[in-house]
Amino acid sequence: MDEFDIETVADPALEAPVLIEGLPGVGHVGKLAAEHLLEEFDAELVRRVYSEHFPPQVTVEDGRTTLACAEVYAIETDARDMLVLTGDHQAGDGPGHYRLTDAFLDVADSFDVERIYALGGVPTGELVDEPDVIGAATTDAFIDDLEAVGVEFRENEPAGGIVGISGLLLGVGERRDFEAACVMGETSGYLVDPKSARGVLEVLQEAVGFDIGYDSLEERAEEMEEVVKRIRQMEQGSTPSEEDLRYIG
Amino acid sequence: MDEFDIETVADPALEAPVLIEGLPGVGHVGKLAAEHLLEEFDAELVRRVYSEHFPPQVTVEDGRTTLACAEVYAIETDARDMLVLTGDHQAGDGPGHYRLTDAFLDVADSFDVERIYALGGVPTGELVDEPDVIGAATTDAFIDDLEAVGVEFRENEPAGGIVGISGLLLGVGERRDFEAACVMGETSGYLVDPKSARGVLEVLQEAVGFDIGYDSLEERAEEMEEVVKRIRQMEQGSTPSEEDLRYIG
Amino acid sequence: MDEFDIETVADPALEAPVLIEGLPGVGHVGKLAAEHLLEEFDAELVRRVYSEHFPPQVTVEDGRTTLACAEVYAIETDARDMLVLTGDHQAGDGPGHYRLTDAFLDVADSFDVERIYALGGVPTGELVDEPDVIGAATTDAFIDDLEAVGVEFRENEPAGGIVGISGLLLGVGERRDFEAACVMGETSGYLVDPKSARGVLEVLQEAVGFDIGYDSLEERAEEMEEVVKRIRQMEQGSTPSEEDLRYIG
Amino acid sequence: MDEFDIETVADPALEAPVLIEGLPGVGHVGKLAAEHLLEEFDAELVRRVYSEHFPPQVTVEDGRTTLACAEVYAIETDARDMLVLTGDHQAGDGPGHYRLTDAFLDVADSFDVERIYALGGVPTGELVDEPDVIGAATTDAFIDDLEAVGVEFRENEPAGGIVGISGLLLGVGERRDFEAACVMGETSGYLVDPKSARGVLEVLQEAVGFDIGYDSLEERAEEMEEVVKRIRQMEQGSTPSEEDLRYIG
Repeated sequence: MDEFDIETVADPALEAPVLIEGLPGVGHVGKLAAEHLLEEFDAELVRRVYSEHFPPQVTVEDGRTTLACAEVYAIETDARDMLVLTGDHQAGDGPGHYRLTDAFLDVADSFDVERIYALGGVPTGELVDEPDVIGAATTDAFIDDLEAVGVEFRENEPAGGIVGISGLLLGVGERRDFEAACVMGETSGYLVDPKSARGVLEVLQEAVGFDIGYDSLEERAEEMEEVVKRIRQMEQGSTPSEEDLRYIG
Repeated sequence: MDEFDIETVADPALEAPVLIEGLPGVGHVGKLAAEHLLEEFDAELVRRVYSEHFPPQVTVEDGRTTLACAEVYAIETDARDMLVLTGDHQAGDGPGHYRLTDAFLDVADSFDVERIYALGGVPTGELVDEPDVIGAATTDAFIDDLEAVGVEFRENEPAGGIVGISGLLLGVGERRDFEAACVMGETSGYLVDPKSARGVLEVLQEAVGFDIGYDSLEERAEEMEEVVKRIRQMEQGSTPSEEDLRYIG
Repeated sequence: MDEFDIETVADPALEAPVLIEGLPGVGHVGKLAAEHLLEEFDAELVRRVYSEHFPPQVTVEDGRTTLACAEVYAIETDARDMLVLTGDHQAGDGPGHYRLTDAFLDVADSFDVERIYALGGVPTGELVDEPDVIGAATTDAFIDDLEAVGVEFRENEPAGGIVGISGLLLGVGERRDFEAACVMGETSGYLVDPKSARGVLEVLQEAVGFDIGYDSLEERAEEMEEVVKRIRQMEQGSTPSEEDLRYIG
Repeated sequence: MDEFDIETVADPALEAPVLIEGLPGVGHVGKLAAEHLLEEFDAELVRRVYSEHFPPQVTVEDGRTTLACAEVYAIETDARDMLVLTGDHQAGDGPGHYRLTDAFLDVADSFDVERIYALGGVPTGELVDEPDVIGAATTDAFIDDLEAVGVEFRENEPAGGIVGISGLLLGVGERRDFEAACVMGETSGYLVDPKSARGVLEVLQEAVGFDIGYDSLEERAEEMEEVVKRIRQMEQGSTPSEEDLRYIG
């Protein structure tokens, strides 16, 4: 295997698609949002990106193994075609993040992507009842478009910048002439956060122009509310069941 | 020395051999199993694989040094020829795991290997009296063959996937058109586990078609039983001798 | 993106400029000093150096992102032209430090730089009222010139040598025929230290031949004095406000 | 700078020299021994090896900086010419150890070295009054020669093998057709150990055929005895002076 091995699974003709990235990160917000898109639409797997910069690992499902990879799906809608990038891993090393990002941008290039949305969470350090959606972008035009659909752009947030693949899709993406934005839901940083993911998707829906339901995310959000309730009980003495703990990310 | 230095020690003509890997890992199950095969058969060393991705280290035996390496042995049987890959080390870094795996697959290719068995342990977190043997594979046909000899394929096990060289022999092996399976004995994860290794070899024996004795593994298993007994005594106050501790891996 | 991506923002004709480096380090002395120069002079951004050896990260300001990079500014004065190298990061790995340094020296070469001043702090482990300025250099001539303006050269200081980009600008710089010196202000090592930065700039001013004010550094130094006072109070029981803590580097 | 930069400082014609390596390690035994050879003989610096695999660092002495490097000295004696390899650093990463070793072997090759002595310490975990000298080698002939001068070769020692540059000079050296041995003095592993270094040099003297005094090492050994005495006093309640602690490696 070379440093990268990009498998072409399908090659649909998309019209000016946007790239939407949701890899693991704070509160799993980006990944939850990306997975929800794949559930709601008739998504088609188009690329698998394997790389020695991913952990040396296979996942196992029903006995069948899958080599660590990122996946790119195509979604065709009446309004706007989309590519959704998701997976289970960030890179294992610093230069690997840069090189993986370049590989992802190569895929985006091959589909003539112009705009990139990196989805994620921004940690607040405390439980948030009504999470805002914060943004950062590479161009003023993109900022204007996102402000118009309710994304907040703040003077010094996120204070620590944006790290990992999401950050580099903006940073390296800009160097390669993509317009890119990061759309981040506020989240505690301690728990998997479907509610924050829904907030992110609601502004994305406006920005990109699609229409989806949120029942499954809503259900998961309610499960998490339950978990939070039990954690608060725990702090007051009782013990959670194993099932509760499964949701803590 | 280059990134890899593959020494050809012998070059026997093998007939459609399978590759069996047993490198260090959970409970040393894979390595114990591989070493038992080398003891039971008239195995011939055919390759040494040196690499800068192994630790910078020599081992010393009777004053003579050996550079860190993996070794490949050939075993010819009436039923089925085998290559056995073993050694003292995994790679020291993530990309190194991918590259070492490729080097091992190059050796397998040069012997026209089609099927790969990666042997290992799956940690249960507690002492197991009757360890099951769990499997994962790259094809349904291989799963069927292994189920027929008693390997269990479970919905979500191993939950953390398979890491290291074993995992990549499946993941990268599949990308290079090998059929590969991982055969894992349940083991506590705390101790060297010859009993689990025997369980793995017993299904391998059925799958590959060879016939060996287990006296030496049995003996080591009994020693470990003794150690476990003493550990339990320790927990109740008495102190183990130095010899006991030697077996704790 | 390649391993390095050097963006030419402007290309003024400078006359025999010196290179002045102030990247993050002990007490942020070098970076504070470099930033003060950029404030005091009409500095022009001439190069941005991007690299996979920087952290995989963008910073965000007013919603706009900037990929991790180092920046080189040009300052033209009547006496002596200067290039100022600053940024938010050292390299993430050992070889990366060597390679980034080479990239910076390539920029210096392209402007015919002959002398390099690396600015930094030397940790004393305790609060210093009157910080000395310590030096180290690659040539006796440069040592003589710096001694003449008050830099102290001591037998075994800094005892641990000089690490990071500053150290390599001297070490690798010498191998590439630059004359280079490191000018280090004594500093506790626990706090951002504008006073130490001022000390460094005062000798640099003499050595290079420029004339600047210190009002803004003085102000920051006074703020830090205030912080130090409060820390001492803290140790005696009271709690600092969030604003105080902002200054602790 | 390239990955390696080998500076030729002098190029004397040596006759069948042996290479003697003493880099930092357990008890600084190898480095103390190498430095003692340089003191006792009229040694000539012949090569400096710079590399991005060394730490990004310069040392400072009397204000002058030196880039992290290893140094090779030539010693011409009536009996046998020697090259002595010493320095302040091992490599910063695993592959770097392999590559540095290759660079050192390239230097050895250019002087037609056939035999290599890697000097070091073997940790015993306790203070040793009469340290033995243990060996490991790549050929039986070399083992015989060293046994003849009092080096002990033991069945399973050192149990952990030999790590770092010393180990690889044997392991990679053998792959490149050098005869190599590691000569290790027993040492506690907690303290700089000049006495162990003397033990190593005494067998080396016999093996190579030179004749040196040990006054300076003896003096340092006595200082260390003093330190050990004070440590034992410390354990019984009194406090060591700062000067004592200076010797603890």
